[in-house]
Amino acid sequence: MKTNPGRFFEDFRLGETIRHATPRTVTVGDVALYTGLYGPRFAVQSSDAFARAFGYPRSPLDDLLTFHMVFGKTVPDVSLNALANLGYAEGGFRRPVYPGETLSTVSEVIGLKESSNRQTGVVYVRSVGSDERGETVLSYCRWVLVRKRDPEAAIAEEHVPSLAKVVDPQDLAGALPKLSAAAYDTELAGSPHRFADYAVGEKIDHVDGMTVEEAEHQIATRLFQNTAKVHFDGLAAKDTRFGRRLIYGGHVISLARALSFNGLANVFALAGINAGRHVGPLFAGDTVYAWSEVLACAEIGRDDVGLLRLRMVATKNQPCGTFPDRVGEGYDPAVILDLDYWAFVPK
Amino acid sequence: MKTNPGRFFEDFRLGETIRHATPRTVTVGDVALYTGLYGPRFAVQSSDAFARAFGYPRSPLDDLLTFHMVFGKTVPDVSLNALANLGYAEGGFRRPVYPGETLSTVSEVIGLKESSNRQTGVVYVRSVGSDERGETVLSYCRWVLVRKRDPEAAIAEEHVPSLAKVVDPQDLAGALPKLSAAAYDTELAGSPHRFADYAVGEKIDHVDGMTVEEAEHQIATRLFQNTAKVHFDGLAAKDTRFGRRLIYGGHVISLARALSFNGLANVFALAGINAGRHVGPLFAGDTVYAWSEVLACAEIGRDDVGLLRLRMVATKNQPCGTFPDRVGEGYDPAVILDLDYWAFVPK
Amino acid sequence: MKTNPGRFFEDFRLGETIRHATPRTVTVGDVALYTGLYGPRFAVQSSDAFARAFGYPRSPLDDLLTFHMVFGKTVPDVSLNALANLGYAEGGFRRPVYPGETLSTVSEVIGLKESSNRQTGVVYVRSVGSDERGETVLSYCRWVLVRKRDPEAAIAEEHVPSLAKVVDPQDLAGALPKLSAAAYDTELAGSPHRFADYAVGEKIDHVDGMTVEEAEHQIATRLFQNTAKVHFDGLAAKDTRFGRRLIYGGHVISLARALSFNGLANVFALAGINAGRHVGPLFAGDTVYAWSEVLACAEIGRDDVGLLRLRMVATKNQPCGTFPDRVGEGYDPAVILDLDYWAFVPK
Repeated sequence: MKTNPGRFFEDFRLGETIRHATPRTVTVGDVALYTGLYGPRFAVQSSDAFARAFGYPRSPLDDLLTFHMVFGKTVPDVSLNALANLGYAEGGFRRPVYPGETLSTVSEVIGLKESSNRQTGVVYVRSVGSDERGETVLSYCRWVLVRKRDPEAAIAEEHVPSLAKVVDPQDLAGALPKLSAAAYDTELAGSPHRFADYAVGEKIDHVDGMTVEEAEHQIATRLFQNTAKVHFDGLAAKDTRFGRRLIYGGHVISLARALSFNGLANVFALAGINAGRHVGPLFAGDTVYAWSEVLACAEIGRDDVGLLRLRMVATKNQPCGTFPDRVGEGYDPAVILDLDYWAFVPK
Repeated sequence: MKTNPGRFFEDFRLGETIRHATPRTVTVGDVALYTGLYGPRFAVQSSDAFARAFGYPRSPLDDLLTFHMVFGKTVPDVSLNALANLGYAEGGFRRPVYPGETLSTVSEVIGLKESSNRQTGVVYVRSVGSDERGETVLSYCRWVLVRKRDPEAAIAEEHVPSLAKVVDPQDLAGALPKLSAAAYDTELAGSPHRFADYAVGEKIDHVDGMTVEEAEHQIATRLFQNTAKVHFDGLAAKDTRFGRRLIYGGHVISLARALSFNGLANVFALAGINAGRHVGPLFAGDTVYAWSEVLACAEIGRDDVGLLRLRMVATKNQPCGTFPDRVGEGYDPAVILDLDYWAFVPK
Repeated sequence: MKTNPGRFFEDFRLGETIRHATPRTVTVGDVALYTGLYGPRFAVQSSDAFARAFGYPRSPLDDLLTFHMVFGKTVPDVSLNALANLGYAEGGFRRPVYPGETLSTVSEVIGLKESSNRQTGVVYVRSVGSDERGETVLSYCRWVLVRKRDPEAAIAEEHVPSLAKVVDPQDLAGALPKLSAAAYDTELAGSPHRFADYAVGEKIDHVDGMTVEEAEHQIATRLFQNTAKVHFDGLAAKDTRFGRRLIYGGHVISLARALSFNGLANVFALAGINAGRHVGPLFAGDTVYAWSEVLACAEIGRDDVGLLRLRMVATKNQPCGTFPDRVGEGYDPAVILDLDYWAFVPK
């Protein structure tokens, strides 16, 4: 058979390495489309002149564009038969990516755990995105719930990996070139608030909302060469429990990140992903809002930038003035994303 | 507070200068997306080879793409709490913009006039878009009706500026490089009509219509980093008088300009904006049509190009064979845009 | 009159040459948007590094992007008053096209045949797309049913051209640079199947489906500067037999080609178009599926690549596991496209 049916749970082997298909040269075309789809306004990624004054050779890609490009390649091999994307951990953006670079992805299977009903299992992978010289630009772990082809199939070896709850910020300090905090123009950047202006426990409602259309998430998800059919096949979707196309979870992350400019305008680059969970599904016609909480402020031995640990919560169809959050064991029903990440802020 | 609530009328001061956030390097990616969103077919902007033969170093950006990029930056500071965009005047495109250049915008508050009910006021700004060396590429005035936070708040100083009814065409003559009318290939450009073929009073129905989708205007407006929430938040829009998302007025201008190719194919570059008014709102699902009238033909001391003063009228859901226009004090209800501009045509 | 009413059947003359308007410089922006609209994953077009390792100077454009750009220019002159796009033949992709090149199109009228009722006639054209030096990059024949302005009008000279049923594969052999089959990394390309792995008669269901939105086909069709109003004017469309906007037939070809990656991942470049027919209309909301059949495998005197003759059938709202096909004189009602083409596969 020449078509890819996708791997089922029993097809994965602990420790195996999967070299994913379709390397991708990222371009200013991808950047423009990313801007049109999400509307980010971070000055470093928007202006070559601003980026150069600050210390970059030119504007780097939005880190989430890099993330989606690296992630998309894993879908045909890892999650074509997934029922749910359960979580992320140990994410690290190793260096800025620039237009013209070519990204490819390799994943290692670091964990396998069959469900008690033997219908499904959890697959843990560590995915590494590299440039054309093989240098790592991004790595992260994610785990997904994958169907078994045959409930009776035996699993060769199981293992639940022990993943860090939080990425050590010192490990992320080297991701950026030497920058100049003094050359960072806060007026052009849209906010006066620098590293020292954020305090642990501070919550910020990002105010604005964005209604999502089918065409938008489909264009985005194809741009990332993510092939999960739940996002594209509206006819097949009628027979699912949702009855319609499900929006790629990464679309929510990018929307929330773009909305977070209003309050976090100087949080100019992502550094690490500590944890992430797609709490609920998003559908076309829904409106996304977001709020953030400062979880930690870390000095990393640099005089240009510090790291903020932020929690970004996205909701659908409910503004975030009341900071919809966890409720008991679960979440407020409006919450769709809970992402815990490290990001750089100028001093 | 770290989020931007937008300025209210009493927050503006006559004579103040606002340096807007988020400089933007424009790229061939932006150009492609602009083409996909509006479908312009002007040869100068479409083909580097055509532009070079004519005398440009390469294809410049569509002038309206420049306009939207410059305009978008002003929204968070000027019109986040605006109730209406009332008009434009004294617009001048100072030179062509090319991919790779970085645009930023500064606005000066040139007028303030409180409404008699003290609930709102009109803010007049002159916005100047510049490249990374600070050279002006575009300037224009606009005035918007802005809410007051507190109707009782006093206004420091009021002033209604005196704005030219028409930009002097001689002031626009230097905006283009030296071109060669003989090298302008009318067959490749799509029309045989040159400067001398247009006569004052001539009206042209542009025939074609374009139905607008939510995804289209949202992608466009985000591309321009215009953050006005009325364009994006479908949930909040339910509580407005329109009950749905309002389309960015500039979207109409770009659609009408692209439609005007059919009849004005050689009107290859904008020079100035004399006046402009968004007469009515546009919503997704509406179909836009346009017609133009030649108001003046101006010699500007160049042997390559002349200037046409054109009036471009856009309608919704009504073809323009009957030239829907002003009616009494108002307009035919189908009219949504009335724009008076200068543009270059080869001799 | 300055607007283009389009040619009617009696306006065409056998043997005349039409130089079409609006040359176009293709860019990485066009490539990104094409990827977002269709989701192709062919490694040669996606990665400069992959393309270079294989023997290209860099990633070429997707051949269908070239096709649409060349085709779009012909619409205002050839098919503005067309009732149907009847067929394609003798298509040849002469060399890869790269970002930065400028494409323009010239068509020759090679056939004219009035319908017996004298209301319409079939126009046959051979369209040639060239780069800025005039070198041919693509040529193909198509024939369309065009309305007469006046049923009584006489036709100067009629002729039905004799078109090849199949393009000779030997004529297509020189379209590619010297490549290295050994350097073609099938793992990165997404499939182990090379030229020798395909057999005549083999059928492949491409499994995945793609639901199409109005915004998507409109953005695509404008990107290609195709102006046929049936694709854009939703208001006028209400009075047509379909009652809604009709999707550009080329949109179906690109969707089906992108879907065909799942089964034909190494069919990395188009070579020729033998025949093509838009069997049925596609509308927004429909879901497109596709299947392919191997019609022939041709050695072309190269040790790097061979040619497969493939038939690509697209359906709407019906998955292709049962290979919906011709039925009697017609087709299964789900079929919307039947395309017979030659394409390159590494050995």
